[in-house]
Amino acid sequence: MRSNAAVASNATLTTGLDVRLAARAGALDAPTSGLAYGYVQGNLAILPKDHAEDFLRFCQANPKPCPLLGVSEPGDPAIPALAADLDIRTDIPRYRVWRDGAVIDEPCDVTSVWRDDLVSFVLGCSFSFEEALLAADVPVRHIALGCNVPMYRTNVPTARAGRFHGPLVVSMRPMKPADAIRAVQITARLPSVHGAPVHLGYPEQIGIADIARPDYGDAVPVARDELPVFWACGVTPQAAIAAARVPFAITHAPGYMLVTDLKNAQLAI
Amino acid sequence: MRSNAAVASNATLTTGLDVRLAARAGALDAPTSGLAYGYVQGNLAILPKDHAEDFLRFCQANPKPCPLLGVSEPGDPAIPALAADLDIRTDIPRYRVWRDGAVIDEPCDVTSVWRDDLVSFVLGCSFSFEEALLAADVPVRHIALGCNVPMYRTNVPTARAGRFHGPLVVSMRPMKPADAIRAVQITARLPSVHGAPVHLGYPEQIGIADIARPDYGDAVPVARDELPVFWACGVTPQAAIAAARVPFAITHAPGYMLVTDLKNAQLAI
Repeated sequence: MRSNAAVASNATLTTGLDVRLAARAGALDAPTSGLAYGYVQGNLAILPKDHAEDFLRFCQANPKPCPLLGVSEPGDPAIPALAADLDIRTDIPRYRVWRDGAVIDEPCDVTSVWRDDLVSFVLGCSFSFEEALLAADVPVRHIALGCNVPMYRTNVPTARAGRFHGPLVVSMRPMKPADAIRAVQITARLPSVHGAPVHLGYPEQIGIADIARPDYGDAVPVARDELPVFWACGVTPQAAIAAARVPFAITHAPGYMLVTDLKNAQLAI
Repeated sequence: MRSNAAVASNATLTTGLDVRLAARAGALDAPTSGLAYGYVQGNLAILPKDHAEDFLRFCQANPKPCPLLGVSEPGDPAIPALAADLDIRTDIPRYRVWRDGAVIDEPCDVTSVWRDDLVSFVLGCSFSFEEALLAADVPVRHIALGCNVPMYRTNVPTARAGRFHGPLVVSMRPMKPADAIRAVQITARLPSVHGAPVHLGYPEQIGIADIARPDYGDAVPVARDELPVFWACGVTPQAAIAAARVPFAITHAPGYMLVTDLKNAQLAI
């Protein structure tokens, strides 16, 4: 999938603008984790104007899985609040194009399917709070293991808004008790990137039958002296877009995020 | 122990000054829980000047069990930072007098044993954060049951300072996971009254063999869908005073606190 040349050059992508320009030039086809350290990365959802109002209400009603960082004007590929030089059609390394709630393509550029009625939503992402956890010496298991975070569909419903509904999806990080307490404190200060955990300790209470079998991502071990700690996850809005069967939508491909000009250090309340 | 008349009149004790004046007049011989809603209550430790410096360092080194709210000048029964009209020798409803690390008396007034070299330390108390938890609709089990909070000696040592040392003592409140997360958030904002929990979920990890048998206070049930949540406890300094076998000390009697002029709402950072 990824050329060695692309990986080697990624070390020079130290700002959000570097990443966006590389994606725009077709020179970056890789997940954005680890790029542009310190910069806020975001989940992307692009919807036609006639679904955008419902989706905006869905985000407002479900701020933990869907923390809104920015919203574009209809048809405008820029979001000045997030980045000075941004073309949302080209600046993400890989997209997903959805029709009727299903993914039909994963292109590197969505200029050819762009429409004047499309509204872009950028939602906070766990990369920001993981950076804060690691900075505080709180270990993050899936990063240590070099795999994807385990994610689970729960039996907790989101608040419905128009067509958009579905289960809360959560990510899980196993932690020793004192680290779990620190993680609550650290992530509580970051409500724009999912905030404090939604649950810890008893997976079955939120409808997770088997912690070893995540619905998305990779399983990670939970030691006997650890607690599984669950955060609301940015996959929730993609599940809601699928459930709503909207005729047309664009999202980022999982792991291939929009990298903004904002700094993670600016997010703490 | 307590006359009906004393209990009946307690309803009129709505400020810290009300409680102090009632205690000073000998009209209050009851625990202070539930009195002067909204006012900060504190643990009291009074030590001779030649032990006070060690104790001050002990508190500085162990801020979670020993959060210092105020310290007097040697021999001065006032602490202006905590209360405008305060005589520390008479204004607590009941005291403990210690000799060589053991309690020898529990008087209502310590004027007769007062000395010019005594330094008073007032430490934050869990009543303040419990008020904040209840205000946020986080249930507190021992308050609901009308009993004392369960407390446990742990295998976690405090940081020694001079003669003062000993185990961290913790209090325990059972909570459902989402309430435990909220409780971390709420109490983290209150470092001057023990702050965030020190542990949750696995009592044996901190040397508690049987959660049903606390070392102090009363046992409370922990339901299967709950986690035991542990906070550093103000009994820790009393245990350190006992361990240090200081020749002379005065403390409050458990539950009979100093009620200050500070408001709990002022404590949040």
